[in-house]
Order: sequence, then C-alpha cells, then structure tokens
Amino acid sequence: MIITCTPNPALDVSYHVDRLVPGATHRVRSVLERAGGKGFNVSRVLHQLGVATLAIGPAGGVLGDSLRADLVDSGLPHELLPVGGATRMTVAVVADDPPDATLFSEPGTALSEKDWERLLDLVARRLPGAGALVCSGSLPPGAPVDAYARFVALARGSGVPVLVDVGGEPLVAAARAGADVLKPNAEELRSATGAEDPVAGARQLLAAGAGAVVVSLGAAGMVAVTGSGAWRARGPRVDGNPTGAGDAAVAALAGATAAGRSWPERVAAAVAWSAAAVAAPGAGAVVPELLDTEVEVGQL
Amino acid sequence: MIITCTPNPALDVSYHVDRLVPGATHRVRSVLERAGGKGFNVSRVLHQLGVATLAIGPAGGVLGDSLRADLVDSGLPHELLPVGGATRMTVAVVADDPPDATLFSEPGTALSEKDWERLLDLVARRLPGAGALVCSGSLPPGAPVDAYARFVALARGSGVPVLVDVGGEPLVAAARAGADVLKPNAEELRSATGAEDPVAGARQLLAAGAGAVVVSLGAAGMVAVTGSGAWRARGPRVDGNPTGAGDAAVAALAGATAAGRSWPERVAAAVAWSAAAVAAPGAGAVVPELLDTEVEVGQL
Repeated sequence: MIITCTPNPALDVSYHVDRLVPGATHRVRSVLERAGGKGFNVSRVLHQLGVATLAIGPAGGVLGDSLRADLVDSGLPHELLPVGGATRMTVAVVADDPPDATLFSEPGTALSEKDWERLLDLVARRLPGAGALVCSGSLPPGAPVDAYARFVALARGSGVPVLVDVGGEPLVAAARAGADVLKPNAEELRSATGAEDPVAGARQLLAAGAGAVVVSLGAAGMVAVTGSGAWRARGPRVDGNPTGAGDAAVAALAGATAAGRSWPERVAAAVAWSAAAVAAPGAGAVVPELLDTEVEVGQL
Repeated sequence: MIITCTPNPALDVSYHVDRLVPGATHRVRSVLERAGGKGFNVSRVLHQLGVATLAIGPAGGVLGDSLRADLVDSGLPHELLPVGGATRMTVAVVADDPPDATLFSEPGTALSEKDWERLLDLVARRLPGAGALVCSGSLPPGAPVDAYARFVALARGSGVPVLVDVGGEPLVAAARAGADVLKPNAEELRSATGAEDPVAGARQLLAAGAGAVVVSLGAAGMVAVTGSGAWRARGPRVDGNPTGAGDAAVAALAGATAAGRSWPERVAAAVAWSAAAVAAPGAGAVVPELLDTEVEVGQL
C-alpha cells in the first residue's frame, strides 16, 4: 500500500464563466467542488489504477466536512485528522473565451505543534508494511521547515521508502533527512539550489542526503539523478491540461519504487503517467490507454 | 420591528490580491467571509442604527452553517429556515493595482415548493405587529415568478407595509400583487417596463398595482413616484464603495414607511442613507455622521 500525506489540503472549487473581465460581475454558469491537494491527487491516480493507497491529511471547519464528503463520495481510502484550523479553499475560474483558467489559492491555516504530532502518529501507525510514503504539496503557513523531514525520518525508521514533492527550504530539509526520492520541477530545483542546470541542482540535493532526484521539465520530459547514474526520459507530445501531471508522475515513481523497479523503468513510468494525466480532463486522473505510451530513456 | 426576507442568500467571500491577471495563479493575501444577501444587508443597516429588525432566509449545506455562524457572531437577530439545498457562495476578488473588485456569483440552489411554504409560514408568524416587511435580492433558480408576490399578499393580509427590491418579472409580479414600495434601479426598471424614462416606467408599475416606486439613479439621486405625487431627491457626491448603497436606501425607506413619514421625507432619507453607505467600507453598514447629509428634494 502507498500512503500519501497532504498537510495543506484544500477544497478545490471550479467556476465556469464565459469570459473573465477584471472589475466586472460574473454569473457563474456551473460550480464543481472536490477534495484537492497534491497527495490526494497522487492517491486518486493510484486508486484509479487499482494500486492500494491511503490518503492522509488534516481537515477542519465546514470546508473540512466538504473535503471529507468528497473523499467518501469518490471511494478513495482516506484517514483525515480532525483539526481546529479551517481547511482552505482554492477557486479556479475556467473561462471559454479565451480558454484559460485563473486560480486563487488561499494560504491555509496553521497546524499546531500538537496537530503535527498527531499527523505524524497517524502516518506512523500505517507505515508498517507500506510500500512507500509520499509527502506532497505546500506546507500550511507557519509550518516548521523540517515538517516533511520529520516524516522522512519516520519512514526511514520503519524501512519504508519515502518520496517528497515540495519546493523551497522544505525540499532541502527533506534531502538532508535522507528522502529516497525528491521530485521538484525545474523552477523549484533552481530556486532551492541556485543551480541553472537540473543535473547539477539534483547532484546538490544528492550531496545533501537525498537518495534520488527526479526533475520534471514539462514537455521536455524528466531527468533522474541517483547515486548510481543519471537518465533522461521523454515521451511523445500530448495536448491537454497539465494540472496534475506532476502528481501522476509521483504516483508512478511511488508505485515503481514500491515494486523495486530499476531507475530507467521508474523514470519511464513517470513520464508515461504524466502524459496520461495531461490527456485526462482534471487533476488526479489518467487516460489508461496512454500509460503504455512510448518513452525514450537515455543515460546521461 | 422590520422583517427582511432574503430567499437567495450567499456566503460572501472576499479575496485580497495584488493584481488580477486572467490565466495566472494568485496567492490570496487575506480571506474574509460573511453572510451576504440584500435583505441581510438591509437588516444590518437597521441594526447598526438601533432599529429593531429580524432577518429571515433559508440556509443549507456547510456554507449555510457558515452563514448562520456569521449572523450569530455579528449579533444580527435572525431566523434561518433549514433547507436541503446548499447555500451558495459569492467570491469577490479585490485587487490593489488597479484598484477594483471582480465578482463571481453562484446562481444558488432551488427551493422546493415545501421550502417556499415554510419560508412563507416563518414570515407569517412574525408579521403581526411588524412595522414593515422587506423582500430583497435575487430569487434562487427555478423560483416561481410570483415568489415575492406571495409575500406581498401575505403582508397585505396582515396590514403590514411591504417593500420589494428585485428586478425582472418578479418586480412586475410584485407590483400586480400590490406591493407598497418597489425600489428598482434605473436599468431594472427599464428592462422590466421597456420605458426609457424612470418616471414613465414607475407609472407603469403604479398602474399595475404598486403603491409607490422609488427608482435609484446612482450618483444622480432617486425619483419617487406615488399615487399622490412625484419627487426627485439628490444628495452631495460621495466617493467610496457603491456596493450596498441600494440596501441602505431600502433600509431607510422601510424605517420611514414604518414610522409613517411623508414621501419627501422618505426619499430624502433614502438618498442620505445611501450616501452614508457609499462612504462605509462594505455593504450592510453606514457612516452615521453622514445620515444627516443635506438632500435636495423637488416635486416633479
């Protein structure tokens, strides 16, 4: 089973409008809401593909109730920690003309030190026998820089591989704690390490303590750098919605890591699942027919 | 006591951002939420000024809980009818550069025929001894065109003056039912009657059965047309936020109607309270010092 931890989930609300005009009043044509957060999306993709998964995160306030209801409705196995702080919301305004999406993302509510301990405990109780732990997405305001690093230490203590998808200082802290796999995008890696070249940046995180670094480069594919080698993988161009492509890549890496696959296989799966997510209409889903898409993997 | 009925309330959420860029992702700097709806704003203004009021409306779903919590927090006397349909949300994105507000308004959820009956019952139980009933704001999707007309008939049956603030066909239906005061803005009146001239449009609604029509003309003041005369009132120019100015005008008209004031006094109060609301930072509040602002009233 693959456990995902999403410490700053959100109720994602989508508004469909004809056209977004700053300063104007818009009648919203349709409203969609669902439990959002990068770790939840990772679990959704795994669940869609029949891989056992458990989504863990905090939930509070009335939007926490909506979040829980959506997870129940979608049948995604989950354990939500009741917290005092209110779950945040994101609002995506999807326009027809021109076709684009404008996102408003609330920062979220701080977790107390006690909440962090309870979240760690919740994960700790599920770790024995797990295939991998995924820690994914932004941290709530006021979170300690080493918030993910604590989960990394916990998983390592249980002998469970741990993957982390985050940017900024928490990325460096997760590397120092010895995360098995980090998956920054090129911009997150550049901003955390100062290195312009993704391979050079990845090597910095390896030197800090990470086991492997997989850098997503958008349409240019991915680069994986480990202690034993470096690979570049690239798939065919897919048109669609890139939101959630990174989460599908993390789902592939977690599944392939838990299954003990080789690094060329892991990075090929990450690129293929990512393409299959771009072709799907929303985050947290893939088009299964595209999972076997041809991916070129070359050693660097 | 002045009763207000808001059949399509909303949880109003305000997002503060630096600049609104269509297609971009925005970190929201601050989030405010409060119980919104035009009748609630009318009650808030009356409550601020020490006039006894009771705000009535339906509430459902998790946002209905938030709505209720905000009314409790603000100390506004209210009776919310629990309904199965979920209370809607509006999102206002307030930007610094350029300074403007962009509004996204969900349509809301239909009330069942049973819900409408229960809402009528709730109002009916409070009507005896009330000074006025105010029906204000949009109707939820699928509402009967005569939804407000039913409340008008109910109030007339109890001998309580009734004021209606709505546009479209429900405005005409409220006139036919004999509403004491209608308060469309110029555009609502034009679209409901086809008349370009506000006085001509108001006379159409009087002919249909309304007791009086007060037309708000924005910075140009207001026109009041009744069976016994017509007046135009205009106050000094006030800079500020026009959201909620119409609700303050309705609050003034309701208070002055309940107190049996003359029509020149009523329309002068409506213009003054409206200006005092423009000077206040948000809807549902007035700057009390501006309530005695000089208003010119002339007979037409």
